Amino acid sequence: MTNQLSDPAAHDRTLSDVELAHRLADAAGDAILPHFRQPELSAVNKLAAPGASGFDPVTAADRAAETAMREMLARHRPDDGIWGEEFGRIPGTSGREWVLDPIDGTRAFLSGATTWGVLIALGASSGRPELGIIDQPYTGERFIATDGVAQLQAPREERRLVTRSTAALDRAILFSTFPGIGTADERAAFDRVSARVMLTRFGMDCYAYALLAAGHIDLVIEAGLNAYDIQAPIALIEAAGGIVTDWAGAPAWGGGQVLAAANPRLHAAALDLLRAGD
Amino acid sequence: MTNQLSDPAAHDRTLSDVELAHRLADAAGDAILPHFRQPELSAVNKLAAPGASGFDPVTAADRAAETAMREMLARHRPDDGIWGEEFGRIPGTSGREWVLDPIDGTRAFLSGATTWGVLIALGASSGRPELGIIDQPYTGERFIATDGVAQLQAPREERRLVTRSTAALDRAILFSTFPGIGTADERAAFDRVSARVMLTRFGMDCYAYALLAAGHIDLVIEAGLNAYDIQAPIALIEAAGGIVTDWAGAPAWGGGQVLAAANPRLHAAALDLLRAGD
Repeated sequence: MTNQLSDPAAHDRTLSDVELAHRLADAAGDAILPHFRQPELSAVNKLAAPGASGFDPVTAADRAAETAMREMLARHRPDDGIWGEEFGRIPGTSGREWVLDPIDGTRAFLSGATTWGVLIALGASSGRPELGIIDQPYTGERFIATDGVAQLQAPREERRLVTRSTAALDRAILFSTFPGIGTADERAAFDRVSARVMLTRFGMDCYAYALLAAGHIDLVIEAGLNAYDIQAPIALIEAAGGIVTDWAGAPAWGGGQVLAAANPRLHAAALDLLRAGD
Repeated sequence: MTNQLSDPAAHDRTLSDVELAHRLADAAGDAILPHFRQPELSAVNKLAAPGASGFDPVTAADRAAETAMREMLARHRPDDGIWGEEFGRIPGTSGREWVLDPIDGTRAFLSGATTWGVLIALGASSGRPELGIIDQPYTGERFIATDGVAQLQAPREERRLVTRSTAALDRAILFSTFPGIGTADERAAFDRVSARVMLTRFGMDCYAYALLAAGHIDLVIEAGLNAYDIQAPIALIEAAGGIVTDWAGAPAWGGGQVLAAANPRLHAAALDLLRAGD
């Protein structure tokens, strides 16, 4: 390809998956940050029409970041599939797939809060994610899992991440993004767990999964997720010692209802309560 | 005093209020950060006894930070009063009072999230706060208001803060810390506003007031606040062009029910809905 000849980086076939993942996150952050906390945001902020199913903000930053990541992948991993929030799923020939959410937490992003993140995962197509990044470019916190090891790289700390050993629900901290959760049944299931934990907090988007992997909180319960919302968190939390499944205890790689727990005991206790209404 | 002789800083009587406020915030951050995201936190995390009124975490960081600020004030402003969350209210003789909350958002702090902050305000005793700081030492964001000007000083940006001009509730973003808000009546009042806005988000603690001052969100509504929770946000938001009152439209310096709005039109519209149940 002609444009490869003009780009020295295109010849670097030795770039490892993790090096490439870091470059993807860097490129996404570079594309997003010029838009963060800018007044223009309100102009592109699409309000759902009356009667539509909700608030679906889409920003120029979201598209610019996914485009930058797709271009980099096309150059360095032309045989891998890509599944991205903004531009859909393109199958590859390698059996591997990159799963991208350029801005997870667009409502937080529009609000100027720093609980949104860039999500990047790599795994077998429709299988377990092996590599995952939750990146917060404004604060400079990058949570990354590769080869079964989870780490935080941040301006103020650099360390391996291990989930908490909290043994009982009544000592656990539970996070979820919206108090509404999902359907009425889903809300009731969530409330059964929430009633038993020490503390329930809302509003953290993907950052809640990072806090769980980092050993600060114990449970995240959500519903209605897409695969690109949860694949990077799964890789990160499992590498840190935690467990992520759906509300039936099955793999959550495809999204839907998600239960993330710091350890097997808490996972089992929360799962029992989520299923108690069945 | 003997210990002043051994401390050159104690002789610096020319230190302005704003310089001193910066030093107080620096000292608080230095006292707090060694405790943030440390495993020890779970050990000092006091759970209320069954039947008690809730979850009241108190950390070593909280006390260390307020102690550091009080020592600095005793040295540089011995005549001013101090009202702090951890160690109470000590009247001064100058008619001025420093109002301190070393960690506003202790639940966020315990969860590893960065939505807590150090709050520092200065004003006439029981009067309008003139100087205010919301400081997030982990991310390095310092929101400060003095002489009627609000500013953000952060690693990635340094700018004057101006609140949004959003004209109507149906374009407004509303934040509150807990979905529960307060009493059933308070919850109903909140829900009347929430039902009319574009987006409601939870979980930001004092950071929500900073986002309002910075022009990213439009409304913050809370109940059950203490004076030290709200005095710094009032100084910040008013200097940025916003309005903060209680739910009757009176000054909110003393805490209680708080309505913070980006501009007078939104404030009036939200106030009408909050009072609609009276």
